[in-house]
Amino acid sequence: MARSGCPINAAVEAFGDRWSLIVLRDVMFGGRRHFNELLAGSLEGIASNVLADRLKQLVAGGLLTRSHARRGQRVTYSLTEAAIQLVPVFSALGAWGLTHRPTDEPLRVRAQILAAGGPAVWDEFMAEQRAVHLGAPSPGSDVIERLETAYVDAIKKPTGGE
Amino acid sequence: MARSGCPINAAVEAFGDRWSLIVLRDVMFGGRRHFNELLAGSLEGIASNVLADRLKQLVAGGLLTRSHARRGQRVTYSLTEAAIQLVPVFSALGAWGLTHRPTDEPLRVRAQILAAGGPAVWDEFMAEQRAVHLGAPSPGSDVIERLETAYVDAIKKPTGGE
Repeated sequence: MARSGCPINAAVEAFGDRWSLIVLRDVMFGGRRHFNELLAGSLEGIASNVLADRLKQLVAGGLLTRSHARRGQRVTYSLTEAAIQLVPVFSALGAWGLTHRPTDEPLRVRAQILAAGGPAVWDEFMAEQRAVHLGAPSPGSDVIERLETAYVDAIKKPTGGE
Repeated sequence: MARSGCPINAAVEAFGDRWSLIVLRDVMFGGRRHFNELLAGSLEGIASNVLADRLKQLVAGGLLTRSHARRGQRVTYSLTEAAIQLVPVFSALGAWGLTHRPTDEPLRVRAQILAAGGPAVWDEFMAEQRAVHLGAPSPGSDVIERLETAYVDAIKKPTGGE
């Protein structure tokens, strides 16, 4: 039960503690689908109990689903349509962070591509996420790959001399 | 010090606990500039100590400034340029909440106007906020007034029969 019927408040209550957003970001932009990947790969050093709690909340809130390929196999998390529609929120947050906070170069490039691309690129990216997480047909665009390539290139680049 | 240099994380650390966002929303969309207005008018029932804490954090984080008209007069809070540039974030959050969460009709209308208007209307609204909070020249647009009128009309409307 939300504390008010304001759409901004409702959104913030649904995923608005920072760890929930960070977990969704890692599933969406990092392609991490398993608990151990989310834990070991966490840039922000999320604690294991916090990760477990937020995954549970995000499933309960309709932002993630969990499935086992087979009994005994590890759990895979998938974004729901509601979570995929957070792409404009992530893009707006990233654009704001780029401008108003100190950030690291390799971590900036994907936010820059999303900010520069605007709604047309967000729509392509959302369609690609639907193919990955919801079994929708592949849209044929390549935003996921462009983001990944830009990130890997930025990591490789020597950081001196800027 | 942020836990990572990711722009999304940096943004979320800057204002990403739910109460901070709600306080900024009330200053921006509710025109509330004083502690008592923010406390008494809070739809979500923010507690006095939480409000005091978040106002302090938002000032420290460069999202609000505080001023006294004269010694002994009550404190007025103003949005900074960084806070005003959160309009696209609020608009994206509101659009998401409208679609994916149960919300109340009178509280929906402003989010609907911002979502339908897109970046052109956000820019006008930001220019108007700069006039209110930063002493910039008035841009001559009327988004603040349109949002307020739509909200007041929605409150007056009988809610049966829908």
